[in-house]
Amino acid sequence: MPTPNSGQGSTAIEATDLSTASGSAASGPAGAARVVARCDMLKHAPFSDSSDQLFRPFLGEAHHATILQVMNWAVQAGMTTRLDGIGNVVARYEATAPGAPAILIGSHIDSVRNAGAYDGPLGVLLGIDLVARFHSKGERFPFALEVIAFGDEEGSRFPSSMMCSRAVTGALDAEALDILDSEGISVGQALETFPRIAGQELTDHRLDQSRRSIDELVCFVEAHIEQGPLLEAIDEAIGVATSIAGQQRYQVTFCGQAGHAGTTSMLLRKDALAASAEAIQLIENVATSFGEDLVATVGQVDARPGAVNVIPGQVAFTLDIRSGDDGLRKIAAARILEGLGAIAERRGIAVDHDLVQDLPPSPCDPELIELMVEAVRKTGSSGRKMVSGAGHDTMVMSKFIPSILLFIRCLNGISHNPAESVTVEDVDQALDALEHFIRYFPYDPEQAPG
Amino acid sequence: MPTPNSGQGSTAIEATDLSTASGSAASGPAGAARVVARCDMLKHAPFSDSSDQLFRPFLGEAHHATILQVMNWAVQAGMTTRLDGIGNVVARYEATAPGAPAILIGSHIDSVRNAGAYDGPLGVLLGIDLVARFHSKGERFPFALEVIAFGDEEGSRFPSSMMCSRAVTGALDAEALDILDSEGISVGQALETFPRIAGQELTDHRLDQSRRSIDELVCFVEAHIEQGPLLEAIDEAIGVATSIAGQQRYQVTFCGQAGHAGTTSMLLRKDALAASAEAIQLIENVATSFGEDLVATVGQVDARPGAVNVIPGQVAFTLDIRSGDDGLRKIAAARILEGLGAIAERRGIAVDHDLVQDLPPSPCDPELIELMVEAVRKTGSSGRKMVSGAGHDTMVMSKFIPSILLFIRCLNGISHNPAESVTVEDVDQALDALEHFIRYFPYDPEQAPG
Repeated sequence: MPTPNSGQGSTAIEATDLSTASGSAASGPAGAARVVARCDMLKHAPFSDSSDQLFRPFLGEAHHATILQVMNWAVQAGMTTRLDGIGNVVARYEATAPGAPAILIGSHIDSVRNAGAYDGPLGVLLGIDLVARFHSKGERFPFALEVIAFGDEEGSRFPSSMMCSRAVTGALDAEALDILDSEGISVGQALETFPRIAGQELTDHRLDQSRRSIDELVCFVEAHIEQGPLLEAIDEAIGVATSIAGQQRYQVTFCGQAGHAGTTSMLLRKDALAASAEAIQLIENVATSFGEDLVATVGQVDARPGAVNVIPGQVAFTLDIRSGDDGLRKIAAARILEGLGAIAERRGIAVDHDLVQDLPPSPCDPELIELMVEAVRKTGSSGRKMVSGAGHDTMVMSKFIPSILLFIRCLNGISHNPAESVTVEDVDQALDALEHFIRYFPYDPEQAPG
Repeated sequence: MPTPNSGQGSTAIEATDLSTASGSAASGPAGAARVVARCDMLKHAPFSDSSDQLFRPFLGEAHHATILQVMNWAVQAGMTTRLDGIGNVVARYEATAPGAPAILIGSHIDSVRNAGAYDGPLGVLLGIDLVARFHSKGERFPFALEVIAFGDEEGSRFPSSMMCSRAVTGALDAEALDILDSEGISVGQALETFPRIAGQELTDHRLDQSRRSIDELVCFVEAHIEQGPLLEAIDEAIGVATSIAGQQRYQVTFCGQAGHAGTTSMLLRKDALAASAEAIQLIENVATSFGEDLVATVGQVDARPGAVNVIPGQVAFTLDIRSGDDGLRKIAAARILEGLGAIAERRGIAVDHDLVQDLPPSPCDPELIELMVEAVRKTGSSGRKMVSGAGHDTMVMSKFIPSILLFIRCLNGISHNPAESVTVEDVDQALDALEHFIRYFPYDPEQAPG
């Protein structure tokens, strides 16, 4: 465990700091190279709880080390820092008039198992380097800039995701503190035992401590790798998400009859796996018929009894349908469910489907979309509008304050994988776009919530 | 653990003995009713190692209790009994001239988990009751009758099946004694600690002790439930297996690319599960095109990484193909493998298939087939010849001595399930057919191996 520090002292962590670009990243523009190098640095111990891969779960030791490091970098960029009641780092760059509402910029610093370096931290470190740009020129705005590093977005420790942005918006209820990890430790217990930071005991983990008032905030800006292949396909560095796709998840179960693989003729079988195979084909065909506008995925399948010489009598699988267009999503779901029923009826077996999640699309703010498109165009990309198929903290924040999501191209669209990769040039363009967005933000204190 | 006994004393087990038909089974012919009632009795403790279902693994406590009970019944039927080196009960009804070669009649007394009562024990108890019929009339033959109760056919304790019939034929090598069960106990260790039986220490478990010479044996006769629906479909009580189907088992693996379920458009996916679904459909279609002559089954499927929001990058499944006709089996396998390759190529992903088992058909003896068909016809059925899709000890024995397999109808073809069911009338007809088979067996001592 690294030595706690106030962001001012010299510590083991600070000794590995990258105040300027270094190494291979030095070939690109300095700020962007530093952002990429910092993400890369956070891949390894003490910033990962695993020695051979990146794994940074919420409220683990690596999360703690990362909080200290991010605070350190934020202080260097001219900000004051604090940790809120649920473990979010909040760093503030004051407005021209102290206490003015803030534009909140950020993403998350937790990770899945065997993660890539950029999913989350890139958005946080872009925010810090953006502030560093303004700070180095002595530039301040009528609004403050706050950078937030959410502690849980992925849900890779507790069976609940985006807990930290939900706490900020007040959408996380107290029962969440009782959720247990795989070792039986609750969120509340994990918060109570989280080491003290910057001389302050994190004893007051009440959710009230994390909740923000809309009076304090202007809007939320998240920058994130695309985690998909579209920007690469159109050869552009950055794009603007107009919405986070709506999503339905079903648990589908076919019940046929188990039987001996050697003695039951093909014509007499009620094979739940053969029925499921037909269903998975149907799902793929229906989704493909919507082109780029919709995706449907069967990710888990469980065939029982699961013996090489027994015809599967029961097969359960998951179905995940997503689209930026709520109407298309519902049409596709209806076609698929109708098809599942037809397959079951023709085969004389039973099918059951439970809707286990139904999230409507989360649109970004229309005015912020146009502002960000304009900022992207100023930096040389076309300002491509896209739908995010993946969930992000922006989903939660957009229900609370006007929000916008900037996407950065990633190699082959690969994410949640050590092969995750971005270029310094693309990151630099994102930094330029964010700078333009902030500098020309049409802030009217009279209309501001505060 | 029941008290060991020599088959002569009065023991707890003998107190529950069914020397004559009793209970609901009493409505049918006495011998057959007794056979069915004895099978039913063996469903429960101490003859099952599970309190709520039948589970009788090789060399467990229930197996030991069952050995004692079977020996007891065999002694009552006029036989002498012994346990061989691998745990098979061998009961002998002497020939007119002592020491003559024997017709070996039997099946297995181990069971799968959550088993039915008749898979195995029915053939053993039919053998004992057949001898009881002859013994009650004082009838002896120029050949002896031996009833064998194999200790392992199912392979439900150790990851190897038919070990006990293989030991009898000499096809089990000494390395088998080192095979471990799920608790790390080897076959050899389990044999060493198996309680002493009938005053004799089972210390000499050398496989030599179990191996028989072909000079001692005339042929092998197994009676077994069909475990399939054909006899029920043609409304006949019994039929004759001409062969045990040949069988190939493959492990098939599709390797695509895992990806985010929300961000990867349908057109850019390399979904290993969608490919596998297409393959499972193909397998069903190819097998069905051969009608009653062939079956193919995908029983296990494993999709990875197996998360609801991740496109499966790798899917492995088992493929089991069986046919009584070796040529058809090979044609079907070739068509399926060709189809798998075409699916992989069209989808731009990789496929791999490993042949993990390739058993040729095990034909029954042509002369014995005709003798058994004749015996079946004498009892009122048509003498239907059938292929056994399931494996049986007859598979092993037929490579050693002439062998024949008599099938008995079972309700709905269900087996390996507590719902396994036979009727007393069908069992009685099987007993009549076996009686005819033995009484009119064309035994020529001059041509006999001994």
